[in-house]
Amino acid sequence: MRAARLHEYTDDMEAGLSIDEVDAPAVTDSDDVIVEVEGAGWCQTDNHIIEGMWEPYVPQPLPMTLGHENAGTVVAVGDEVQLVSEGDKVVCHPVQTCGTCRPCRQGETMYCENDAFNGLTTDGGFADQLHTSERSVVPLPDGIDPADIAPHADAGITAYHAAKKAVRELDPGDAAVVVGVGGLGHIGLQCLDAMSAADIVAVDIKASARDLASDLGAHYTIDPTSEDVADEIEGITDGVGAAQVLDFVGADETTALAPEVVAAGGDHHIIGYGGHIHEPAQALVNGEFAYQGNIVGRYAELQELVALVERGAVELETTRYDLEAINDVAVKLEHREIDGRAVITP
Amino acid sequence: MRAARLHEYTDDMEAGLSIDEVDAPAVTDSDDVIVEVEGAGWCQTDNHIIEGMWEPYVPQPLPMTLGHENAGTVVAVGDEVQLVSEGDKVVCHPVQTCGTCRPCRQGETMYCENDAFNGLTTDGGFADQLHTSERSVVPLPDGIDPADIAPHADAGITAYHAAKKAVRELDPGDAAVVVGVGGLGHIGLQCLDAMSAADIVAVDIKASARDLASDLGAHYTIDPTSEDVADEIEGITDGVGAAQVLDFVGADETTALAPEVVAAGGDHHIIGYGGHIHEPAQALVNGEFAYQGNIVGRYAELQELVALVERGAVELETTRYDLEAINDVAVKLEHREIDGRAVITP
Amino acid sequence: MRAARLHEYTDDMEAGLSIDEVDAPAVTDSDDVIVEVEGAGWCQTDNHIIEGMWEPYVPQPLPMTLGHENAGTVVAVGDEVQLVSEGDKVVCHPVQTCGTCRPCRQGETMYCENDAFNGLTTDGGFADQLHTSERSVVPLPDGIDPADIAPHADAGITAYHAAKKAVRELDPGDAAVVVGVGGLGHIGLQCLDAMSAADIVAVDIKASARDLASDLGAHYTIDPTSEDVADEIEGITDGVGAAQVLDFVGADETTALAPEVVAAGGDHHIIGYGGHIHEPAQALVNGEFAYQGNIVGRYAELQELVALVERGAVELETTRYDLEAINDVAVKLEHREIDGRAVITP
Amino acid sequence: MRAARLHEYTDDMEAGLSIDEVDAPAVTDSDDVIVEVEGAGWCQTDNHIIEGMWEPYVPQPLPMTLGHENAGTVVAVGDEVQLVSEGDKVVCHPVQTCGTCRPCRQGETMYCENDAFNGLTTDGGFADQLHTSERSVVPLPDGIDPADIAPHADAGITAYHAAKKAVRELDPGDAAVVVGVGGLGHIGLQCLDAMSAADIVAVDIKASARDLASDLGAHYTIDPTSEDVADEIEGITDGVGAAQVLDFVGADETTALAPEVVAAGGDHHIIGYGGHIHEPAQALVNGEFAYQGNIVGRYAELQELVALVERGAVELETTRYDLEAINDVAVKLEHREIDGRAVITP
Repeated sequence: MRAARLHEYTDDMEAGLSIDEVDAPAVTDSDDVIVEVEGAGWCQTDNHIIEGMWEPYVPQPLPMTLGHENAGTVVAVGDEVQLVSEGDKVVCHPVQTCGTCRPCRQGETMYCENDAFNGLTTDGGFADQLHTSERSVVPLPDGIDPADIAPHADAGITAYHAAKKAVRELDPGDAAVVVGVGGLGHIGLQCLDAMSAADIVAVDIKASARDLASDLGAHYTIDPTSEDVADEIEGITDGVGAAQVLDFVGADETTALAPEVVAAGGDHHIIGYGGHIHEPAQALVNGEFAYQGNIVGRYAELQELVALVERGAVELETTRYDLEAINDVAVKLEHREIDGRAVITP
Repeated sequence: MRAARLHEYTDDMEAGLSIDEVDAPAVTDSDDVIVEVEGAGWCQTDNHIIEGMWEPYVPQPLPMTLGHENAGTVVAVGDEVQLVSEGDKVVCHPVQTCGTCRPCRQGETMYCENDAFNGLTTDGGFADQLHTSERSVVPLPDGIDPADIAPHADAGITAYHAAKKAVRELDPGDAAVVVGVGGLGHIGLQCLDAMSAADIVAVDIKASARDLASDLGAHYTIDPTSEDVADEIEGITDGVGAAQVLDFVGADETTALAPEVVAAGGDHHIIGYGGHIHEPAQALVNGEFAYQGNIVGRYAELQELVALVERGAVELETTRYDLEAINDVAVKLEHREIDGRAVITP
Repeated sequence: MRAARLHEYTDDMEAGLSIDEVDAPAVTDSDDVIVEVEGAGWCQTDNHIIEGMWEPYVPQPLPMTLGHENAGTVVAVGDEVQLVSEGDKVVCHPVQTCGTCRPCRQGETMYCENDAFNGLTTDGGFADQLHTSERSVVPLPDGIDPADIAPHADAGITAYHAAKKAVRELDPGDAAVVVGVGGLGHIGLQCLDAMSAADIVAVDIKASARDLASDLGAHYTIDPTSEDVADEIEGITDGVGAAQVLDFVGADETTALAPEVVAAGGDHHIIGYGGHIHEPAQALVNGEFAYQGNIVGRYAELQELVALVERGAVELETTRYDLEAINDVAVKLEHREIDGRAVITP
Repeated sequence: MRAARLHEYTDDMEAGLSIDEVDAPAVTDSDDVIVEVEGAGWCQTDNHIIEGMWEPYVPQPLPMTLGHENAGTVVAVGDEVQLVSEGDKVVCHPVQTCGTCRPCRQGETMYCENDAFNGLTTDGGFADQLHTSERSVVPLPDGIDPADIAPHADAGITAYHAAKKAVRELDPGDAAVVVGVGGLGHIGLQCLDAMSAADIVAVDIKASARDLASDLGAHYTIDPTSEDVADEIEGITDGVGAAQVLDFVGADETTALAPEVVAAGGDHHIIGYGGHIHEPAQALVNGEFAYQGNIVGRYAELQELVALVERGAVELETTRYDLEAINDVAVKLEHREIDGRAVITP
């Protein structure tokens, strides 16, 4: 079968992956599931992986097939699989988990001590087929096209995961700020809107992103190139600040907003990355706020997100590309030329 | 009456405060309480205030009497005060609150929108008498000497406040790390021990502090000058990391421990300050940990801490000094020559 | 001024209250607030008070002016009141609190140890003026008519309070059941809809109530006179049961639903009352559910509800009546002839 | 092998179980684990099962080997088992779970939709060997004898589970009441003591049980045969009531304590069963308390309890009996002649 693989780290996105002919995966364990990939979302993290940015954090055996946002149809299962059978449509949680370590027992599947991460530490879904397991597939409700929902497997649950944490702290009248209304941000914004009665403030340098935010339910938008974000939020919140900030950018400039923007007792969620936090400890003490890291959502959260999609609460903008166009997608994303989410359809 | 006042910011601790003769406070409002100060703890923050380190964060009308850890005997009350009367022993929460703003309504008295902070934004207790209000005094149980409990009014509840947050996330078998077993740290450690069944790991460069930690219930101690903190904690926790870290130091070196030391989903509590956080956003994403700021505890937490003291669960090491010796205390603390807590007894 | 007062307990609603001429209230304490009543909601609890049903639970000095859902205009304030001044429109939380007991400190104003409850333990708002305090009034945003919002002072925050607890436990895909879509239930339903992405199931014997539920956002309705509630909910939830049940009826038949209807780990919230719980302890063990009592919401929750009203998320059906018609209203409610909420406009 | 099996429901404990010769269990699935039973605790629930009291709640294929509190040594494993291998000492969580249903994903293993419960819905451990799975065994730390820890597999985690819920709501100064200091109660009491700084009040009709409670850390004991429980608790708590009540009896008389004993906002945990709740809905509304059902603890909670045992925080009184004496044990328990916990050692 075909598989788009990374052979060595590079900053040259035009030559990031090569499409190789490799053996199709086969069932070896009792809980294996083989999925024919119908949609595989391309993520900013794929660019970061190609650049080698994850190499210090996780083991990466090269060559490796990228692609961690996958959905498709089950084509083979191990002999003890109960949850799905051949022909079922599924969306694939990117993390394959053991089910027996303590974090798995606690439902914290993202902290599995024996995990493999599709397209990050093991072969992913930019290929005709994907090797995964019963513990990592969520059956799709009727009428949902795998290629439409694929990006929710990572972008979606990452945004949902952060939004769900934020929602727990949001009362009516509180303000929630979404920084960066891109692939993840526009999902997170919809999740906030569906699950809380907070006043949503969207911050983005692109007018089209701010317009999208308004369409999706933002009550206020701020253009940081022409407005002072802290002043605007102070005005919107009568000086209280934003109870929760979801930072889908994670640049130096956006993490620096926290001391002036986050309300006492609130959280600045770090979801996007690339930049740094540089703040005096005293700022966190004085404002009693947190910089809260956020990783991909849990398996159960993917189920919840599928429920949100099924009720029409979360729309996803996608554009489809052939597997052969994969490096073009990487380049376009680097140049910020992709609106919504690019989905590879092998 | 006598009052130790700050006239201008200085780095010279020997000449930080001057003992002035000022008018004694008088009851003006219906909920006023005047306290004859019997003990007023000296805090690292007092040094920071003298240095001007809080000037960018809060309004400070100089000259101002410092002292935010006060306890003593009520000598006068406003005509609608119900909670205490003349002769009652009390410990004074450092923040005077309005009781009617939204944070006060929610019990978040530290976020009061109309607050005054003894010795930080209004006159404090390094004086013969203190002007405070019914909303800021906690009556003491019989047999507790105000001079013994005074430091709990700030050092105590700050440590308790952070420990209480941490305890909520600590299951038996989890590890909690106390970084810095000084004035606050040794209280926080005892709170963790009283309120959880976590394994407590104490980190301090001073052997005497590590010994104190062991005496107070620490299960492990680490000397960062001769041991690798991350390696030790990895060993203690079987590679999982510490569920909660309470950083009572807040230096660059201690905030830098988080990515390697905090377990997935855990918190690095910033309580001490002076240094900075410098970390890539990606580190927080990868480990899904938080830098959680911590301010002084709420009024209700001071009640809870008094309950802990009453049951003998939290001991406090104090040394008493006359009001006249106040600048000596500042110098000694700067030189790390004070064990436990210095208490001024006007 | 005129005041509709209860002189003795009776089951005869036609003669429940008498309209007496009494002295208008005057400012005596520094935080007093006198409100000219423009709207005072009539509540099922008023019938219960007249019947003597609250006599075993709280002290009731008769004669007493009833009316705990009040809103109007401030006409006088004590000399230390900061929050409001003459002419301000306010909605009155029914509980007057001390602000200094431990529950008040924690934000649990409903548990105030020194409280007075308008129209239940002290004179209420079925009168020209109401005597309350700064701690019990919430200023209204511009454009909100006191007579429209008055019922939120009790019906509203009671429903909101229970819904807020439920929302904390509701993930997308979970089912929330509203039993009884009357004065409180139709508010609770809207709060669930505004603050969660749960599937809402409304149960009511009246077709008009079920229609209202559908209009307000219920995804399913059940008629318990013709359908088996447990079977229907089992079908809707694929056998899992309802994560949260809000029982606005509180009759024997509705509390009896819990063992079959509530999902493992879920809650059956008791908001309405009149009936009993009769269940084997084993049923609660086997299903690990709770019967959760719910009292009126806190002061801060009334602020949150006002925010919901201001954004148009909670509509209230009201009909206005003169003070003179007060016993007619009692009779009509007894005969279930009032849709939405009756508001007395003195 | 030998197995003590229930052939038909009976109230005659002398003839409850018969010791049959049956086939030893064999590995059939990839995650199977076969354990040689070294200790199997006898539980009040075993009496209830024999009486047929669980028949209306769960499917029970008779004849069935009872015994749900098991520990021993692994003697065989399926070919994909990673967690344990032959020779490992383990304690067996009583519930065998699927690992793939939504509750399992959330860590709520007790709500597994495809579960089997040892000795309740499938063969248990009153036998030479037990058939279980990798998802249901917790490896024991060195030096812990399986026969000593066996009762923790159900009695222990049930008590721990309820105590853990309670601890989350207990601040220093709050009171926690343990009703019934028997097999479960004496464990629950120790868990409260290890994990909170609450004041513990033990209620039991037996003087020996009250003495045990004092030895294990109770601050107060009450004899309900000679003292008024509500009055005593009112005195101990200054009229506030108990923040949390753990009812290990679950009789009509003990559930009836709640309205007078539980503090506003508190919980009456139902752990023991046999009796009923009979209360007006109004009582729950007025006091805003909950009757909270409690089932057996989760797998992860058994890990936490093992950690508590390892640190010496929870002692268990046990007496050992041969398998042949099994009906004698049932009779003795019925007559309340067993102190602590009886453990069968096959």
